[in-house]
Amino acid sequence: MSVSTYKQLEQEFRRLHAFRGALSLLRWDAAVMMPRGSADVRGEQLAALETEHHALLTSPRITRLLDRAQANSQGLADWQVANLREMRRQRDHAIATPVSLVSRLTKATARAEVYWLEARQQGRFELFAPYLEEVVHLVRDKAALLGQALNLAPYDALVDEFSPGITTGDIDAMFKALSRRMPSLIREVIALQDPRPPQPLNGKFTPARQRALAVEIMKAIGFPFDRGRLDESGHPFTEGVPGDIRVTTRFDANDLFSGLLGALHETGHAMYDLGLPQDWRDQPVGRDRGMALEESQSLLIEMLVCRSRPFVRYLKPLLEKHFGVSGPEWEEENIYAHLTRVRRSLIRVDADELTYTLHIMLRYEIEKQLLSGELAVRDLPAAWNAGMEQRLGIRPGNDADGCLQDIHWAVGSFGYFPSYALGAVIAAQLYESLRADVPDLDEQIGRGEFGGLFGWLRTHVHGVGAKVTVHELMKEATGKPLSATGFVRYVEAKYLENTASSVAA
Amino acid sequence: MSVSTYKQLEQEFRRLHAFRGALSLLRWDAAVMMPRGSADVRGEQLAALETEHHALLTSPRITRLLDRAQANSQGLADWQVANLREMRRQRDHAIATPVSLVSRLTKATARAEVYWLEARQQGRFELFAPYLEEVVHLVRDKAALLGQALNLAPYDALVDEFSPGITTGDIDAMFKALSRRMPSLIREVIALQDPRPPQPLNGKFTPARQRALAVEIMKAIGFPFDRGRLDESGHPFTEGVPGDIRVTTRFDANDLFSGLLGALHETGHAMYDLGLPQDWRDQPVGRDRGMALEESQSLLIEMLVCRSRPFVRYLKPLLEKHFGVSGPEWEEENIYAHLTRVRRSLIRVDADELTYTLHIMLRYEIEKQLLSGELAVRDLPAAWNAGMEQRLGIRPGNDADGCLQDIHWAVGSFGYFPSYALGAVIAAQLYESLRADVPDLDEQIGRGEFGGLFGWLRTHVHGVGAKVTVHELMKEATGKPLSATGFVRYVEAKYLENTASSVAA
Repeated sequence: MSVSTYKQLEQEFRRLHAFRGALSLLRWDAAVMMPRGSADVRGEQLAALETEHHALLTSPRITRLLDRAQANSQGLADWQVANLREMRRQRDHAIATPVSLVSRLTKATARAEVYWLEARQQGRFELFAPYLEEVVHLVRDKAALLGQALNLAPYDALVDEFSPGITTGDIDAMFKALSRRMPSLIREVIALQDPRPPQPLNGKFTPARQRALAVEIMKAIGFPFDRGRLDESGHPFTEGVPGDIRVTTRFDANDLFSGLLGALHETGHAMYDLGLPQDWRDQPVGRDRGMALEESQSLLIEMLVCRSRPFVRYLKPLLEKHFGVSGPEWEEENIYAHLTRVRRSLIRVDADELTYTLHIMLRYEIEKQLLSGELAVRDLPAAWNAGMEQRLGIRPGNDADGCLQDIHWAVGSFGYFPSYALGAVIAAQLYESLRADVPDLDEQIGRGEFGGLFGWLRTHVHGVGAKVTVHELMKEATGKPLSATGFVRYVEAKYLENTASSVAA
Repeated sequence: MSVSTYKQLEQEFRRLHAFRGALSLLRWDAAVMMPRGSADVRGEQLAALETEHHALLTSPRITRLLDRAQANSQGLADWQVANLREMRRQRDHAIATPVSLVSRLTKATARAEVYWLEARQQGRFELFAPYLEEVVHLVRDKAALLGQALNLAPYDALVDEFSPGITTGDIDAMFKALSRRMPSLIREVIALQDPRPPQPLNGKFTPARQRALAVEIMKAIGFPFDRGRLDESGHPFTEGVPGDIRVTTRFDANDLFSGLLGALHETGHAMYDLGLPQDWRDQPVGRDRGMALEESQSLLIEMLVCRSRPFVRYLKPLLEKHFGVSGPEWEEENIYAHLTRVRRSLIRVDADELTYTLHIMLRYEIEKQLLSGELAVRDLPAAWNAGMEQRLGIRPGNDADGCLQDIHWAVGSFGYFPSYALGAVIAAQLYESLRADVPDLDEQIGRGEFGGLFGWLRTHVHGVGAKVTVHELMKEATGKPLSATGFVRYVEAKYLENTASSVAA
């Protein structure tokens, strides 16, 4: 009886999975293919499907089935028990937010996104402010309701939606550890790098050739082009579901690496999604374990694997093949110097892996203040600029390069930013264990072989799906609790490696 | 009270419209963008959304609202009354087919489509036969249930789904009139044309240039590229909704006209959809008036407008501009001869407008026999080949060029084929009135101006939406009941125009 109740639940969640896949495709299309004037039509479609998804997930039928299945869960296997827990989690999150609030948020964020784009193009924050204000109010309501239902502080409830089981406590501990070391480390690294800047890599790199290079490397990594695509869009992203995964990037004819690394970053997301437990692919327990872990997988590929000497060894002949480049500036050391250059800059998505963490800390602080009401929306630009000055020592010349650079707040994604820093920290901790377990990892990567890398990740991360919490996963994969010490060790080793030799020189 | 009930219904159907738009986008993507291996995933998404759409449309809530609104419809305007009628129509059609049958059909046709493709590629009908058999059985069940519910004969019920208000009686009358004249006319025309075949139009016409030409003409016609796209796919089609309309075609580097005319045919569909009453665009009464009228609009553009001397006058300098062609074979008369060449051929989609009607008659006859059980699926190839021999005097060398050429039966579209012939007949009847009402139509088209054309069509066809039946629309637009006599007049005048001069020569 309980098994059949459970099976009915699986059937219901299979349907919800199909809905989410359709929604994902509609979003991909909107960013990659849709004609400019069709945003209103698409908005209606997204709202209709999201509302229906919400209604299905919160229906009395699901609640009844969940209650019955949980009361009789003795006969269930451990994956099924975990699946039941994740079903309940999804439903609890959804039911805490009433439909009317969901639909007001959908509309408010659709509007805010349009004015955010407009404001960014014109560099005029005031165009966006009233719409952001509306979004902040609605997100505040949502956080309060969610917090009540989940017995969490409002901001923690938002974080929990993106990265289940992660709390403000975890985030604060991480940022405290990073604050202790990153500012001084950044100073030291810049002092080391600046006297000897890399030779420029000039040239015209046509998007078609950049694409061919990206495709060749993605194929080597294992991206399945018969069940996935690479396209171009305003900003790199990954959409779709395992079985039809869509990666995008943006090629700049003057910059060889931004498009490639964007594609590889997204390929990290895609490989995570593709490695999720196949038998559970349309069930809650078969999903990724939240955005912090998602970002860890993209950063692990982009930062730890691809901005490394072994990868440059593999990359160099590919650059020669695809672009016909040669000369001293195309030697491995010079390429590597480009890929690991540290600079204080205004734009988060262009930041190196050291200064990146500071960009995130600023956003974390500000979004908590916006939600608590401590900071008024109209004062956001001033707070942003002061924060940039204080943390990075530079000040945006306009809001487009300042508080208007990210889309997150416009679309209501408060509580998301910490995932990026958590992802960096998780990636470093995982990679430390991975390197210990796969001793010839560097040699493999140098030959363009990624079997050892993904074998380990499949076993310890991807294949686990949402069966355990992030904390449990980290403990099991690395033997240690989640902490920022591995990240600090990693960036110190990587960015200060020349200290000894520079002293010796 | 009744108005508010009615308004609730509008709200419900707005949601259904958004669902249909999402489904359309998923289908477009599957044909144009989706990686080959992702068909199973997409199938699940389509099934989930279709099932949900069906469930919403047939919910007790909609039935209750419809009953209440109809009992109190005094205060409603005529468009609202018509909208209520169309809502009821959609619901009655949907509720006649139980969810279990809908979902079995969805799965059976998904399977059959795969094996149809396989069988066509290998030219082996027997690979497809068992799957077609399953589809035929399910469609037969559906037709019976639908017929019962709508008080129509089973085949009429299927036709009614595609072309509301059209009956077997209408179709038989049309085919009787066409049978009387078309075979002899085809003989006469071929006898006229064959002694003086047009000079060949040789050259390499790159898809990129063909696309540029198609886009220029589509823009002149009024296709809004800020709310629509032109892409390439295996077969030309139109998907999407007004506001985001997606047209496809297929460019053949050796054939200048097939891709262009495919695009223009689909642009005819798109212009109809775009001209639907804007105020009702997300309501049942704001939809097209069925597939016969849809096909009339695509054929009117492709056959009557674009395969005409005035259009060739506009086209000739464009060909020179885009392909740099010149010489006697690029004179207007030779181009026109190509566009109006009549030949007995095996493939429907490549047929001229005279032999095309015979292709449809064959399919109409066969599909009725398949459904009644008079013809067994295993005997389909023999029946097809005999029918081709009898009607067109040619026999397919294999089933890929025979009964496997069309996708319709594989996907369960029985009762659709007559729409093509009805479309041709409707187009000719409309065009006769249009020419009378817009005396300088030919001069306008010769200058690449399409305002007079679409002005008339908007008023008399597009803007009417689904407010009246096809029969009423034809009566109001042309002053005459629907009949094939206009079509026969049109093809005789067009294809026998040289008779006199040929005798004189």
